[in-house]
Amino acid sequence: MFDNTSSLARFLPIIDWLKTYRRQDFTDDLFAGIITAILLVPQGIAYAILAGIPPQLGLYASILPPIVYAVLGTSRTLSVGPVSVASIMIASALSSPAIVSLGNPLQSALVLSLESGVILLLMAVLRMGSLVNFISHPVLVGFTSGASLLIIGNQLPLTLGLKSPSCGMDVACYTNYIQGFNSTTLFISLVALALLLLFSQLLPMSLKKLGVKATLITAISKCGPLLTVLLATIAVSVLSTMGQSVNVVGVVPAGLPEFTLIGVTESLGQRGKALLPFAGFITLIAYIESVAIAKMTANLRGEKIIPSQELIGLGFANIAAALSGGMPVAGGLSRTMVNFAAGARTQMAMLIAASLLAVAVMFYSQWFTNIPKAALAVIILVAIMPLVKIKSIFHTWAYDKGDGIAELVTLLGVLVLGLEQGIMLGIILTIASNLRKASHPHIAVVGRVPDTEHYRNIKRHHVETWHHLLLIRIDENLSFANINYIEEFLTTELKRQPDTRHIVLIFTSVSDIDTTALEALESLNQALQSTGKSLNIAEAKGPVLDKLKKTDFFEQLKPGQAFFRTEDAVKQLG
Amino acid sequence: MFDNTSSLARFLPIIDWLKTYRRQDFTDDLFAGIITAILLVPQGIAYAILAGIPPQLGLYASILPPIVYAVLGTSRTLSVGPVSVASIMIASALSSPAIVSLGNPLQSALVLSLESGVILLLMAVLRMGSLVNFISHPVLVGFTSGASLLIIGNQLPLTLGLKSPSCGMDVACYTNYIQGFNSTTLFISLVALALLLLFSQLLPMSLKKLGVKATLITAISKCGPLLTVLLATIAVSVLSTMGQSVNVVGVVPAGLPEFTLIGVTESLGQRGKALLPFAGFITLIAYIESVAIAKMTANLRGEKIIPSQELIGLGFANIAAALSGGMPVAGGLSRTMVNFAAGARTQMAMLIAASLLAVAVMFYSQWFTNIPKAALAVIILVAIMPLVKIKSIFHTWAYDKGDGIAELVTLLGVLVLGLEQGIMLGIILTIASNLRKASHPHIAVVGRVPDTEHYRNIKRHHVETWHHLLLIRIDENLSFANINYIEEFLTTELKRQPDTRHIVLIFTSVSDIDTTALEALESLNQALQSTGKSLNIAEAKGPVLDKLKKTDFFEQLKPGQAFFRTEDAVKQLG
Repeated sequence: MFDNTSSLARFLPIIDWLKTYRRQDFTDDLFAGIITAILLVPQGIAYAILAGIPPQLGLYASILPPIVYAVLGTSRTLSVGPVSVASIMIASALSSPAIVSLGNPLQSALVLSLESGVILLLMAVLRMGSLVNFISHPVLVGFTSGASLLIIGNQLPLTLGLKSPSCGMDVACYTNYIQGFNSTTLFISLVALALLLLFSQLLPMSLKKLGVKATLITAISKCGPLLTVLLATIAVSVLSTMGQSVNVVGVVPAGLPEFTLIGVTESLGQRGKALLPFAGFITLIAYIESVAIAKMTANLRGEKIIPSQELIGLGFANIAAALSGGMPVAGGLSRTMVNFAAGARTQMAMLIAASLLAVAVMFYSQWFTNIPKAALAVIILVAIMPLVKIKSIFHTWAYDKGDGIAELVTLLGVLVLGLEQGIMLGIILTIASNLRKASHPHIAVVGRVPDTEHYRNIKRHHVETWHHLLLIRIDENLSFANINYIEEFLTTELKRQPDTRHIVLIFTSVSDIDTTALEALESLNQALQSTGKSLNIAEAKGPVLDKLKKTDFFEQLKPGQAFFRTEDAVKQLG
Repeated sequence: MFDNTSSLARFLPIIDWLKTYRRQDFTDDLFAGIITAILLVPQGIAYAILAGIPPQLGLYASILPPIVYAVLGTSRTLSVGPVSVASIMIASALSSPAIVSLGNPLQSALVLSLESGVILLLMAVLRMGSLVNFISHPVLVGFTSGASLLIIGNQLPLTLGLKSPSCGMDVACYTNYIQGFNSTTLFISLVALALLLLFSQLLPMSLKKLGVKATLITAISKCGPLLTVLLATIAVSVLSTMGQSVNVVGVVPAGLPEFTLIGVTESLGQRGKALLPFAGFITLIAYIESVAIAKMTANLRGEKIIPSQELIGLGFANIAAALSGGMPVAGGLSRTMVNFAAGARTQMAMLIAASLLAVAVMFYSQWFTNIPKAALAVIILVAIMPLVKIKSIFHTWAYDKGDGIAELVTLLGVLVLGLEQGIMLGIILTIASNLRKASHPHIAVVGRVPDTEHYRNIKRHHVETWHHLLLIRIDENLSFANINYIEEFLTTELKRQPDTRHIVLIFTSVSDIDTTALEALESLNQALQSTGKSLNIAEAKGPVLDKLKKTDFFEQLKPGQAFFRTEDAVKQLG
């Protein structure tokens, strides 16, 4: 990637695009930056409320962290800031009894940011980014669907002016609960929903028919959330003069965040220890999602994401969040798509968006006070709906049943057991499936294709065989994980072909034999010898032979031998 | 195995050998049974003391459990009863603060037996016996060495008449501690050691030179422990009349054990829950060791062990232990080797040994009272020494560095962190190494062997290549675990060969593509298309093609294609 650039650009990917930055790029980025900034205000506030923390933590997380990421990240279009799934995970962490008992949720949120950053940087240093390989796509989709359903359950009451229900399984209680809805709030919610759908669906279609330019349509349609918030806020003011009241965001402190290094370090210790597992899960999901989103947009433009550098970019972005009073951050799907669709060329767009947000927070924070929570809840609900992919389970199931089960179990795990338990269940399923596959290697009894020196699976080809000679090709490295299976396969075949005097293991595909497998081969050989059969190997590769020669394996094998070619073994033993 | 026997023999392996049992077999088994019984008395008492429980729990565990195993187990020579490594694990469980606080260690030991039995039967029912595949041999050896060192540390003070030290890291304290040794006890220990070595080493060698029959030599040499115990007990009686006292076993209740079903079930609940993780580890190790020992002796005689039936045999043996007041049981290495060397043909030998022990417990239990603990400790120490395989680490390291590290880390983990932590560390290492291997599949850039249709690795063979055609053979199923690695490999190759216009993935060895891999292939294809390159596949097997045809993958691939043979792809794109 950076073969032609300085090694500095390796550590500061921003140099990579700044060098060739042109005026036209800036025009594009300016436009995209403004559009994204318009989305950042309601999202920042809404995700903080979703996470159960003061709104400014979401706004602050949208200023310094994206600036840090712009310098260190490899994606040109990823919009870093608060994201929905991480927010519900933060809510889950902050509402767990152990964390509630510590008090001061704001402080806990900052500790989560700091820990996320440190975990990401540790993963970078220890080169453990590939750990995330072991969350399969179906598990991730199942988790995201489950988390999104939890978000919906969390936000729906807000659209009705209700607190979260505490009815458990009592259906009658729910009936009572819903009857307590606030009609003014419901009215605001319905108007907000109509406005959002108008801007996101109806308006773009109509404008397209009128032949309006695509980028302009994007710009107009993305103003929906801000306009909704604006109108809803005005409505609240009008309604309050009429004696009606609805839940609003409340006072957002004016001015830029202060650096909170001391606050953060003071509260580490017990709090940090209690939050660490939560931070681990949040980081894992945030990183996987961010890289997936970054890759998706990069692929569309033939750009390249370097996952190891993303650990650094996102790691420092989270530390920046902690130091500037922000909640944990990641790459957000909806914002990134908006940024991309609005024509962003580079991270300059995000620098512009962050600057605009900083100005808004500095001078216009009093405008945020009267935003009704219901309008923000509707914005979240509309944004989150596409993440609930129930149909995906059926598609996955149809393609690969095991993957379908993993997706369903993870989804149900999130809903029934909780977010952290759900993702743990998914990870365990993934590892178990991996181990299962590893312990069932492909093995074939082979025979000779007539008039050739080719040996093929007797089940698939018409081949010559010999009744006292068993040729077995093992298509995987021999290890503790699969040697028992190989042993059982051989035993079964010997029962089927009891006249066998010589067994030849064909090692064409074997690149390694570990200690456990070696000892198993030795005792297998002993057992075969005691019943008058010989064990032989054929076609072993150089490195395998070298490794075996370090032991007395070939001595033990006698009269069994190591043949160079299967053909040699057949000529001598057949 | 039982193709020719009734299905009853499948559930009761004893039928398998009873049907063909001859007089000569009985003569052999009688001899072996007597020899093994002689070993059972001191071992049973010693392992109970090692586990920190009353001596009768070790004796009772040597009566009913081996009888149950004889009926249900598939090994003809395995000697089931108390074993050293499980005993130190029981000691570790019973001395953990949570278990100590519950009081009544005897009850806890019985709960451990019951839980071990239930876990083994559950593994049998859920067909989870193959789970143990994921403890590799080096991890097991490391664990056994570590556990044996802990046993040595536990038993050495007994040979000096001392209690376990509580000095921590204070060297001066140890000097003081050792000076408190009891010279009478040390004298007994040294005499016991001399006697044991005489019988196990010197006497057999001398007798062999004199031309004495091998079985007789075995019989004589195996009397060492009992003779040692006998002489030591007499010495204690003599010394006590002289006013000298040493630690002795103490009163062992006379008579056979009573069935303790009620006692066990009463104390389940909190105790059961607290002991469950310990029972899990004990069971895991006991099962793996038992099957390994059973396989070893079976291999020597061309017999066959069925691991799934072993779960049932050992499971019921442990439940029998719990019900008859015995500690957890497993197959013991030293006893089984003695039984085997003494010429045991079938489990009849163990039935005889168990009967003899029952008679001893019924009528001669008062003889056990004055056995000095020091003599038993020396017996354990002599038996355990060969299990400390420090050299093995170097051998393993020389053969396979990764396995050597796993062995060393598990050993150190046991010593530094504790038994349960050590084995957990080993299991985690094993799974991590497995995942690592799974995520690095073998991939080769291939070219055509001139004048043939064979395609081989360009690094190993002189082959034709084409500068705008990249042929890549992937030697493993595509899955979430390895798809990222495959993607990175391809990216690197494309950088090396920037003129590439067509990429052909050769799927000769690919039997499955999971959901994650499919989606990665799709986005890879998208990325390649955006830079004007085509992605193609060749030699995909029927099942893989069928699975892909369920999706729109081939539509997306266009103009890329699925070629039947690599040759076809080269003819068209080369």
